[in-house]
Amino acid sequence: MVRNAGVVITDQEATNIEVIDFGLSDLAKEGVQVLTFFSTERIAAKVLALFPNQTEPEHWHPPVGDDPGKEETIRIVFGTVRFFVPGVDNMKYGFVPEGKQSYYTVRHEIIMQPGDQLTLEPGTKHWFQAGDEGAVMYSFSSCARDALDQFSDPNIVRITKICD
Amino acid sequence: MVRNAGVVITDQEATNIEVIDFGLSDLAKEGVQVLTFFSTERIAAKVLALFPNQTEPEHWHPPVGDDPGKEETIRIVFGTVRFFVPGVDNMKYGFVPEGKQSYYTVRHEIIMQPGDQLTLEPGTKHWFQAGDEGAVMYSFSSCARDALDQFSDPNIVRITKICD
Repeated sequence: MVRNAGVVITDQEATNIEVIDFGLSDLAKEGVQVLTFFSTERIAAKVLALFPNQTEPEHWHPPVGDDPGKEETIRIVFGTVRFFVPGVDNMKYGFVPEGKQSYYTVRHEIIMQPGDQLTLEPGTKHWFQAGDEGAVMYSFSSCARDALDQFSDPNIVRITKICD
Repeated sequence: MVRNAGVVITDQEATNIEVIDFGLSDLAKEGVQVLTFFSTERIAAKVLALFPNQTEPEHWHPPVGDDPGKEETIRIVFGTVRFFVPGVDNMKYGFVPEGKQSYYTVRHEIIMQPGDQLTLEPGTKHWFQAGDEGAVMYSFSSCARDALDQFSDPNIVRITKICD
């Protein structure tokens, strides 16, 4: 799917794609597939793939020491992405996964197509969902301390290494 | 060329590709084409395209205030890139542009193919050159203060905006 979207990856990278279900054990509904190009103490570049209508749960990147928190730019490569940020509730195409109403609190919908991009300031709550074709996107960010990400759903378990 | 490499860009972005000859007026020999996806005070993501055997002149990213200087990761998307960094002179496939011997001082050659990537610590002198097919690559970096880049060739004039 990543290669079909035109993203050039090595065979080694293809075997390193992480499948993340956030400990919720319902991958098709809430989850994400991640290929990390690289992750240093200053920058990370990743490719994210979502299955059709798969949802990355609401979360935000908190401040850490002198760091105001992760700044992240999402850039769509393939498919349609329903992206949700704080603001007026205008949710039209996206949907909150069943039974999870209280864990998806921001509902300002931005429909993103290939070539569209959006920069999230540190601390901005967000979640996103692929359209019917699935989606492939880039995530470019400052240091990715994924283990410190905060999720609205208390059932979520996100274990990854800390970069510094 | 960028699109042929599989990189998804908007029509607006296609019209915004910068053609940079570094004030040397010999673009086919020394120059680079740059599409900036975005550039914030923390992160920049760009696509660089080189014509066949075109060379980006030797330069480095100096410290600026509290910033140790730009950290940059280059990731190849299309073509072969002859990348030069400090180290043992093993130049084999690449060549120094005619008459420019004294401005290309680092000669440790790394041959890069699609999917290969390399992270340059701040202050590392480097230059690179496309193979016979040309090349397309990503540049992911901390804040891009291009106007402060230092070049070995004193004839180079690089005028771009400063990001903060």
